[in-house]
Amino acid sequence: EKYQGAPMGTEIECEGWRQEAALRMLNNNLDPEVGEKPEDLVVYGGTGRAARSWDAYDTILESLRTLEDDETLLVQSGKPVGRFTTHERAPRVLIANSNLVGKWDDWDHFHELESKGLIMYGQMTAGSWAYIGTQGIIQGTFETLAEAARQHFPDREGLRGTITVTAGLGGMGGAQPLAVTMNNGVCIAAEVDEDRIDRRLETDYCMEKTDDIDEALELAQAAAAEGDPLSVALHMNAAEMFDELREREFVPDIVTDQTSAHDELEGYYPAGYTVSESEELRQEDPETYVKESLDTMERHVEGILAMQERGAVAFEYGNNIRGQVEEHRNMDDAFDFPGFVPAYIRPLFCRGKGPFRWVALSGDESDIHRTDDAVKELFPEKEHLHRWIDLAQDQVSFQGLPSRVCWLGYQSGDDPDDLTERARFALRINDLVAEGEISAPVVVTRDHLDAGSVASPNRETEAMQDGSDAVADWPILNALLNTSAGADIVSVHDGGGVGIGNSLHTNNHVVLDGSSLAAEKARRVFTTDPGMGVIRHADAGYEEALEEAAESNVHVPMAD
Amino acid sequence: EKYQGAPMGTEIECEGWRQEAALRMLNNNLDPEVGEKPEDLVVYGGTGRAARSWDAYDTILESLRTLEDDETLLVQSGKPVGRFTTHERAPRVLIANSNLVGKWDDWDHFHELESKGLIMYGQMTAGSWAYIGTQGIIQGTFETLAEAARQHFPDREGLRGTITVTAGLGGMGGAQPLAVTMNNGVCIAAEVDEDRIDRRLETDYCMEKTDDIDEALELAQAAAAEGDPLSVALHMNAAEMFDELREREFVPDIVTDQTSAHDELEGYYPAGYTVSESEELRQEDPETYVKESLDTMERHVEGILAMQERGAVAFEYGNNIRGQVEEHRNMDDAFDFPGFVPAYIRPLFCRGKGPFRWVALSGDESDIHRTDDAVKELFPEKEHLHRWIDLAQDQVSFQGLPSRVCWLGYQSGDDPDDLTERARFALRINDLVAEGEISAPVVVTRDHLDAGSVASPNRETEAMQDGSDAVADWPILNALLNTSAGADIVSVHDGGGVGIGNSLHTNNHVVLDGSSLAAEKARRVFTTDPGMGVIRHADAGYEEALEEAAESNVHVPMAD
Ligand SMILES: NC(=O)c1ccc[n+]([C@@H]2O[C@H](COP(=O)([O-])OP(=O)(O)OC[C@H]3O[C@@H](n4cnc5c(N)ncnc54)[C@H](O)[C@@H]3O)[C@@H](O)[C@H]2O)c1
Ligand SMILES: NC(=O)c1ccc[n+]([C@@H]2O[C@H](COP(=O)([O-])OP(=O)(O)OC[C@H]3O[C@@H](n4cnc5c(N)ncnc54)[C@H](O)[C@@H]3O)[C@@H](O)[C@H]2O)c1
Repeated sequence: EKYQGAPMGTEIECEGWRQEAALRMLNNNLDPEVGEKPEDLVVYGGTGRAARSWDAYDTILESLRTLEDDETLLVQSGKPVGRFTTHERAPRVLIANSNLVGKWDDWDHFHELESKGLIMYGQMTAGSWAYIGTQGIIQGTFETLAEAARQHFPDREGLRGTITVTAGLGGMGGAQPLAVTMNNGVCIAAEVDEDRIDRRLETDYCMEKTDDIDEALELAQAAAAEGDPLSVALHMNAAEMFDELREREFVPDIVTDQTSAHDELEGYYPAGYTVSESEELRQEDPETYVKESLDTMERHVEGILAMQERGAVAFEYGNNIRGQVEEHRNMDDAFDFPGFVPAYIRPLFCRGKGPFRWVALSGDESDIHRTDDAVKELFPEKEHLHRWIDLAQDQVSFQGLPSRVCWLGYQSGDDPDDLTERARFALRINDLVAEGEISAPVVVTRDHLDAGSVASPNRETEAMQDGSDAVADWPILNALLNTSAGADIVSVHDGGGVGIGNSLHTNNHVVLDGSSLAAEKARRVFTTDPGMGVIRHADAGYEEALEEAAESNVHVPMAD
Repeated sequence: EKYQGAPMGTEIECEGWRQEAALRMLNNNLDPEVGEKPEDLVVYGGTGRAARSWDAYDTILESLRTLEDDETLLVQSGKPVGRFTTHERAPRVLIANSNLVGKWDDWDHFHELESKGLIMYGQMTAGSWAYIGTQGIIQGTFETLAEAARQHFPDREGLRGTITVTAGLGGMGGAQPLAVTMNNGVCIAAEVDEDRIDRRLETDYCMEKTDDIDEALELAQAAAAEGDPLSVALHMNAAEMFDELREREFVPDIVTDQTSAHDELEGYYPAGYTVSESEELRQEDPETYVKESLDTMERHVEGILAMQERGAVAFEYGNNIRGQVEEHRNMDDAFDFPGFVPAYIRPLFCRGKGPFRWVALSGDESDIHRTDDAVKELFPEKEHLHRWIDLAQDQVSFQGLPSRVCWLGYQSGDDPDDLTERARFALRINDLVAEGEISAPVVVTRDHLDAGSVASPNRETEAMQDGSDAVADWPILNALLNTSAGADIVSVHDGGGVGIGNSLHTNNHVVLDGSSLAAEKARRVFTTDPGMGVIRHADAGYEEALEEAAESNVHVPMAD
């Protein structure tokens, strides 16, 4: 009864749309289509919660319903703790979740406090009321591959004419074939579990399947030669696939992997066994399973490195396969191929580019379709953005309040009014709301994973070139600056995704209600927020960031 | 040449007084009268710095000189890293110093980053440009004793008619006799070092000296009977003094101690030795010194506990004498008397009361004297505040830009316009600036140690009654809220005072330039900032805070 999802429509229960947006986004997190266990207030990611307790939840809602346009509500680890007069240009809600003083900043102390009801795990978008379900996954993979194409094949349209070889068609990895074909490329993906393959075929995430590697190669090479997109699921163990490719002296353009190599017992399958044989072995002799599994992983990484040596572009896709074979098989050269963040995401971050999302508060799908058109109209030259929007409309189903994810850059140098891409987009949407072409306000928010919003030495800030991975001044400045710029909700969290004590990160929401106040806020926040990405990476010495700063007139005082 | 102190006078080099205030306060930190090693950019507290390097310092100054009224400068660990358009009601400078992701939040990693030039230790007021020298010490002691008086002797005027027995007349402890007499009380302070006693007499921090305990007691009892303030330095070891007091069955009203008991070899003196005998022993046989020193400490604590048992009010004054004898002499009952923060400072924090300071940007001492008068006019009934102001004028010499420290509470319930005491004061000063009675703007700032601005389990948040000592959501919300309320500088630091990884704390400045904008900002910030103290302690369940919230109309959503 409590968690039926967000109120929809154009009537509001709060004093203004900014407060109403907070209320709807909080409830959207707990929509049964969106959140994982709304009955426990759990949104996603282990125990990532939207509020500390049902009591706290009720009081947040009550507070939001009466909050004035010049008041600010304070939420401390999912509990409303204060409410003060500020002003219109300030946020309506300020949130701090799971933050601990450094020496006590670990799971043990967190759990002690949690058991006393004094704290809550906010994850990234759970406690900041910005989770939108799994719609974001396909988009991140699409954008990562697009960046790989830009770097390595700058003269092609995306991945056109190239062949990507990967493995793993599970929950995350299943997005790979579609993400490749959306970038015009050809994909061969090894997967041992035929059921998984069939699921991808049914949902059009993958086009063909075969267990004959020669057939896979023939199909792939023919399509690549024609410049046609194609995806082929190859029913085979990844390590065996690489052995066969070497035998045939075939070298793909890109190699990567999304098998669940991070877990050698429950995630990864050893070569020489069918899935059911593997499951039997896992039950009866887990030790042998692990040994065989790690041996296979070693072959698998040798295969990737061999392809890299022969000219393929290789990267790890966040499954820790490098760490596994370095640790358990003493492979010295395991880390000779890079992780995906330093390789593909960081160059985007350097330019202030990151994933953001917008949500139609009306609940009306046609409002999102109108925004889809607006993005395409605004950026007629961004071909892969158009492909993304078209394919998303076609393939990605809405969950909860209709929403869309996309990546836009800073690039204010390209605009006569010196506006960033995100700002141009937000102002256009705000106009459409004002003109009544969109039926109710739209809220723009993002992941905590963004260009200038996170310090996370194991993921987003891994291997920064100056060694500043763990410096947390940056996310704090990000939150203070977006508060100064007039975001409507600002949040600061500890640990999301990588666990308590391992990261600090922030989020913000801007409500586009068609007013000139909203335009003012949008113009500023969508400059300061991606701008933090540019200056953070410029400070670390990244050339792309210094370039972007120069081209887009971003002030970097020590370099100006 | 670089560190000659702040520019003074009524002419400015920046675009506005808010930017000019930042520039002057930064330079004031580095005034040779104020900062400890300005040539190294070190302000105080070990290596607490004002800027990361001279290059960074120069660029901060250049940036401030051209910063517009709607721009915000970002300073990351003492280095200017960005500058963005915000708006007039937002801060002009945002600062984050020494913050690290939890798992890396320790001195080792800090020093590694420091050696690469990537971070700086900001201490509390050093990196936030709010240090004013040692003027603050006497005031903190005065206020602590005033609170002890309020709690234990509510019917007296302060400590009138009471006798306080303590020891240690060093750098900090030497403020005790004056702080007692300023509260109308009588003080007997044991000190083994006659030179120290003489220094206190010369500077009028203490009135009488003797080495005869019977004379000390006679003088003290006579003055107390008359209700006269009196301070007597007793040239004697503290442990011996307590033995003698017990023999005479004398019980004082208050007992405490500020010998340097935290250091058993270099700070504390063993009984049975003169100072020079002690120094000889320390050189020749440090092991025996430490044994004798700890034995004396044990007698000393037994003395304090005996007085407490017989009815005296006892508290530890931050010198860790309880910890020493618990650890090294297995005294089980050492912690039977409380520390001063939980005992006296926390009740003030519960009511949003904490130390803040204001600085005359003109450099003109008469401007501060005008503010002194204003405080007294505004709060005619606050007798101890009047005493403090009078004595400060008389005894506390200015260092750098003239400034004053004082404690005011929340207490908006007492005001017809629902303004807090700090807000009433700030608005009055702002009027005086507008009327030209004060020659240039005044900036109001504070210590990071304040009611709702710090998480520090070893000091300010030690032994919170709900166990939330290490929860750092609070200082983060404090910084975000003060940014929202329109403070002119906002800062967030890690570690000041207690070391990297041990605390998180914030500061803010508000520039009173006589404008209506300044009035608006002052009204809001001096509500939100002390208000955080009220709600933080209300959330932890402190009765005083819940009372203050009810009386002063502070919203505590879960209790409203
Ligand atoms: N890039 C990121 O940001 C990111 C984020 C989350 C997770 N990951 C990692 O990506 C990996 C995949 O995630 P998922 O959610 O798809 O996992 P999943 O467990 O749902 O899918 C893994 C798939 O790999 C297949 N597989 C296992 N071993 C194989 C082998 N040797 N050869 C061929 N197929 C094999 C399995 O049958 C399964 O279908 C995980 O390690 C995960 O931790 C990356
Ligand atoms: N309350 C706070 O917030 C706070 C802040 C800083 C320091 N402290 C602590 O307060 C203590 C005093 O600080 P300080 O700066 O005055 O130190 P200090 O070293 O300057 O002075 C200590 C004095 O105690 C005297 N002394 C030592 N042993 C004695 C004995 N047995 N009997 C009589 N006199 C004795 C010494 O002669 C000296 O004059 C320290 O332990 C310090 O850590 C408290």
